[in-house]
Amino acid sequence: MSSTSSVSMKEQMVPENEVEQVRLLNGIEDSYEGIIIEIKEYMDSHIFIPILRASISQWKQQGKKGVWIKLPIEVSNLINPVVQEGFRYHHAEPDYLMLVNWLPNTPDTLPANASHRVGIGAFVVNNNREVLVVHENSGRFKGTGVWKLPTGVVNEGEDICEAAIREVKEETGIEAEFVEILAFRQSHCSFFGKSDLFFVCMLRPHSFDIHKQDSEVEAAQWMSIEDYANQPYNKEHQLFQYVAEVCKTKSEGDYVGFSTVPIATASNKKMYLYFNNQDFSKFQNF
Amino acid sequence: MSSTSSVSMKEQMVPENEVEQVRLLNGIEDSYEGIIIEIKEYMDSHIFIPILRASISQWKQQGKKGVWIKLPIEVSNLINPVVQEGFRYHHAEPDYLMLVNWLPNTPDTLPANASHRVGIGAFVVNNNREVLVVHENSGRFKGTGVWKLPTGVVNEGEDICEAAIREVKEETGIEAEFVEILAFRQSHCSFFGKSDLFFVCMLRPHSFDIHKQDSEVEAAQWMSIEDYANQPYNKEHQLFQYVAEVCKTKSEGDYVGFSTVPIATASNKKMYLYFNNQDFSKFQNF
Repeated sequence: MSSTSSVSMKEQMVPENEVEQVRLLNGIEDSYEGIIIEIKEYMDSHIFIPILRASISQWKQQGKKGVWIKLPIEVSNLINPVVQEGFRYHHAEPDYLMLVNWLPNTPDTLPANASHRVGIGAFVVNNNREVLVVHENSGRFKGTGVWKLPTGVVNEGEDICEAAIREVKEETGIEAEFVEILAFRQSHCSFFGKSDLFFVCMLRPHSFDIHKQDSEVEAAQWMSIEDYANQPYNKEHQLFQYVAEVCKTKSEGDYVGFSTVPIATASNKKMYLYFNNQDFSKFQNF
Repeated sequence: MSSTSSVSMKEQMVPENEVEQVRLLNGIEDSYEGIIIEIKEYMDSHIFIPILRASISQWKQQGKKGVWIKLPIEVSNLINPVVQEGFRYHHAEPDYLMLVNWLPNTPDTLPANASHRVGIGAFVVNNNREVLVVHENSGRFKGTGVWKLPTGVVNEGEDICEAAIREVKEETGIEAEFVEILAFRQSHCSFFGKSDLFFVCMLRPHSFDIHKQDSEVEAAQWMSIEDYANQPYNKEHQLFQYVAEVCKTKSEGDYVGFSTVPIATASNKKMYLYFNNQDFSKFQNF
């Protein structure tokens, strides 16, 4: 459904003994008996709405279900008129709003909006059992003196394992390789009512000289894992205590998290499965 | 930032030797030097926009950064005028659109929109090493004859472990208890450009009589795990082959996934950490 395309008006010629011309929207059919309309150029609502009404009338006859209208921010003039026609919002990105209308008289089976933001914390540990930690100069840790793991938000379209490598590089200049997901936590109502997934990733460093690059990081250093775990903040907050304990256990070699395996897909989309491959032998023939 | 509140106009009285009255928006300050405005009642744009301009002028003087305007769908008439004032979209839910404007002349540090949808597949296995499987009557598996694990979307605000229990109950009537996350896969561009996380959850059934309830499920049954894994579809698709192999290995007792531990938070928010607690003894004192 992500492949919408340009929509222009098509003039539908009617038999020549009739004078009326019917203009209809030229939508893309989706795989769920729906129609996707993308408006790409400015249009006056007094022109657009009659054409939308005629189109919906035809789609109803055809048994269409969900009608999607993607309005770039340049045509925000059409939002209010389209809402008056019974459409509701589905989701928005900085440059467009997607509206939707369920035509049948049945409960809608429209897909939900994205519900989660995804973040990573990077546990980068060297051969001396020292962990890479940072002081942040914004957010809840600002001015607390707590040395914490580098953290960041996973971008749309970015793999968790890549986000961890990128954040470590951005915050500290350290090159590192992804090893495993050690743990993750899910929380709710973290932002605009959205839920949040946070993955603790173990990385193996390939460089050791810290070059602080990110303006949001005040300082960075290598710190013994015991000193990291024993910070009062980590002792007083259960989540941090668990994470520190998992990291310590891993650094002692006694813990197995989820590592990645790339999955081949028909469409050549990049995809990873994360699982415990401790006994990988049985998976080697796939 | 999720706690926005009603905004009404306040009349700011100016010294009595001036005749002009300045009306300003009464916003809520957020923790990032920002302002959140929520419009709750219909307002004409010719009244709203001058007040918005005066307010922004004041916020700029005060050094405010991000200005958020939450517009319920009932006041969609204000969207186009607000966009003309330089606001862009941030996100939308069915009943509102959130717009934002970054006031300083610096790159914005506004938080990203939710980027991921989260789904579950439930591996419910009984003591006879039979797995609970369903035929779906919509989507890509419709009419394929493939017996698949019950799957579903994790709702906003819902824990992954709870979503798995709910979906199994909805699709098959089986009561089950969450055991572990066995694996997960991340994919991209799955829907409107969003990414997708899919968690394979193991559940232990507490009931065994299937009562199909969900209209999207055509049939449900218990099936030997070998028969499940050996279905041609599972053999031909690498992701399904891996998942089936992980499930088989787990049912033989040779696999450790991530189980949950509830985390205590100061705000009493519900939160789970998922990790490999095979050697749980060291975590018992937290």
